[in-house]
Amino acid sequence: MPGALEGVRIVDLTTMISGPIATMMLADQGADVIKVEPKTGDLVRVLGPSKGDRTATFLAANRNKRSLVLDLKTDEGLTALRKLVATADVVVQNFRPGAAERMGIGEADLRKERADLIYVSISGFGETGPYAKKRVYDPVIQALSGLAAIQADRDTGRPRMIRTIIPDKLTAVTAAQAITAALFARERRGEGQHIKLSMLDAMIAFLWAEGLVALTFPGGEKHAARAQLSQDLIYKTKDGYITVGAVSDDEWKGLCAALDQPQWLEDERFNTPSGRVVNAPERLALTQEVLQHKTSAEWLSVLDANQVPCAPILDRTTLLDHPQIQANQIVEEQSEDDLGAFRLPRPAARFSRTQGEIRRHAPHLGEHTEQLLGELGYDQQTIDELISVGAASNYG
Amino acid sequence: MPGALEGVRIVDLTTMISGPIATMMLADQGADVIKVEPKTGDLVRVLGPSKGDRTATFLAANRNKRSLVLDLKTDEGLTALRKLVATADVVVQNFRPGAAERMGIGEADLRKERADLIYVSISGFGETGPYAKKRVYDPVIQALSGLAAIQADRDTGRPRMIRTIIPDKLTAVTAAQAITAALFARERRGEGQHIKLSMLDAMIAFLWAEGLVALTFPGGEKHAARAQLSQDLIYKTKDGYITVGAVSDDEWKGLCAALDQPQWLEDERFNTPSGRVVNAPERLALTQEVLQHKTSAEWLSVLDANQVPCAPILDRTTLLDHPQIQANQIVEEQSEDDLGAFRLPRPAARFSRTQGEIRRHAPHLGEHTEQLLGELGYDQQTIDELISVGAASNYG
Repeated sequence: MPGALEGVRIVDLTTMISGPIATMMLADQGADVIKVEPKTGDLVRVLGPSKGDRTATFLAANRNKRSLVLDLKTDEGLTALRKLVATADVVVQNFRPGAAERMGIGEADLRKERADLIYVSISGFGETGPYAKKRVYDPVIQALSGLAAIQADRDTGRPRMIRTIIPDKLTAVTAAQAITAALFARERRGEGQHIKLSMLDAMIAFLWAEGLVALTFPGGEKHAARAQLSQDLIYKTKDGYITVGAVSDDEWKGLCAALDQPQWLEDERFNTPSGRVVNAPERLALTQEVLQHKTSAEWLSVLDANQVPCAPILDRTTLLDHPQIQANQIVEEQSEDDLGAFRLPRPAARFSRTQGEIRRHAPHLGEHTEQLLGELGYDQQTIDELISVGAASNYG
Repeated sequence: MPGALEGVRIVDLTTMISGPIATMMLADQGADVIKVEPKTGDLVRVLGPSKGDRTATFLAANRNKRSLVLDLKTDEGLTALRKLVATADVVVQNFRPGAAERMGIGEADLRKERADLIYVSISGFGETGPYAKKRVYDPVIQALSGLAAIQADRDTGRPRMIRTIIPDKLTAVTAAQAITAALFARERRGEGQHIKLSMLDAMIAFLWAEGLVALTFPGGEKHAARAQLSQDLIYKTKDGYITVGAVSDDEWKGLCAALDQPQWLEDERFNTPSGRVVNAPERLALTQEVLQHKTSAEWLSVLDANQVPCAPILDRTTLLDHPQIQANQIVEEQSEDDLGAFRLPRPAARFSRTQGEIRRHAPHLGEHTEQLLGELGYDQQTIDELISVGAASNYG
């Protein structure tokens, strides 16, 4: 089934995570995404355990794209890129601010090739300000956005990093949405534009609605109540860990029944929602005391029967086998000659009419160089010359 | 400046976070979002410290929307909703699977009013499978998606929750992108469709590219190397905490210079990137030992001068004053008569031609009921009757 973005062409100059995952989401929805790489390739091709020129992360961030290797420091390479941009709807880059302009591929340069181009600049910190030219890594954004402080140790106050690169990936999804909105606007009005998005902006906007919400009312920063959800609702059972939540009165009654603790219903500390929040430490300790005596499966069964929200804590060894994850068919097993079998999650949003499909796995470095140069009108002799002078490279 | 989605009308039947933040992103980009609420209102209006019928979280999840209160259990209320849907491009709902159909507002019901409708169903776990009908809270998705396991304590193995509702909010951004893609497809092809998105699917797809990437190659689950970024790169200084990263050789040299430890450059444990990963515990301990002796400001200055990625760990007391966050103008101070001054972050993506703007703050419950019923062609007498029989309600 043709995807929602079928017919859209995107020139993807990005590397690492925030750009590539943004364009992969659009590729999954049918866009023709051309990943333009230097001869050394996107660093993610080699960061971590790899099979040839692709790591597991590269596979998960670059499927449905084609790879074109150009040396943009050569006149010929830059000319080929300009020809490509003339055929494109969107260009995305995540160089540090100022770098694209120095390379001759800034917005003003490329708009000459295509007047209604959507040009996208993803940065770490924004275009101005003291951090604008600094190198960015995900933990730096976790530090500056308040995320590391939100996760601080309750006893020592020591901040903690989240052990997965939330800011990088959140920026990717935010960028994908903005690009799609600009495509819609161009479809209606015929105009391209320049979208700018920084990881820092994306992360603060994302955290705000409850993570930073205590900053909303000036003067109210200190006495904002700790959110219910900020409690660590994890319990140890006889054989593992589960999460259990009981927010509403109905759920609290269900919990007392499931745990066979009818006297908790009479306990004045716990018989109102606000009481349960105020007396959370005692409530959680009592709950933990009971839950340690049976297995996770026993508790989950009886909690389910009493309609109490609950789940096992899944890890890498149990996640793929969970019946809900299997029922949703989230993880698909695929294969390719060079890779053997491998797994990837399917795109999360399911479209009844424009589902899109996996048309190709993440490309080898330069796998489509000759094909794409041919599509741009270069004859074989010229392609061979471009490759021989190093302005372009192909795979193998 | 008109937003990218100017001219799009969205009927928003969602409550809590995952739906409302999705539609707010679209409202920020110019869509006319009509929040349809029961008389009791979205629960977020009262969860947490509130000013009247709005909490800080409600303000941050519902700006640029209008509120219409209808009792969908009455024939008159349901009729008014159907009239509204006939004027709309998109309907979004996040009831538990099956509930919308029972209420007479499932896809098949509402498509009768508008053949090319984009109908969106956001769920916790998907439409089928053992969890489909269960109640969902954010921690349950953290548990099932592997996120709580990724954050587990290194020493005890005890899983940990992230103290901000990542799955809820990530689902919102993912939904906003999917809706926008469907709007683009409809603009080109004239067809509506049904989009289904579950929090569980969204979160696993989001985590995969590095958080769950060890699951990619069957058989490789156990010996996947721990990612560089999974290290807790937080250091205590004389007066607080900072993050410092040194991944490349250049950055490592910069770090050794900044910390005045030239002998580390000769240390065989650390003079290659892979050596620095293998010997991370020793490297981090040595770094911590040095960093504790000066203030954060002193270290950040000398680390910057040596081009080592670094940042202070900002919390609620320091975030608003940081010069980069101020330079980006991320947080805007606004005000309204009922609320006084309050702060919200601006939308993260900046559009050069379709920036959109804050047209109104989050609405009171039923603030636009009369206005909207009037727009649908009801005369004042009928509106008064609808309100008097309880099929609709207005504010105040």
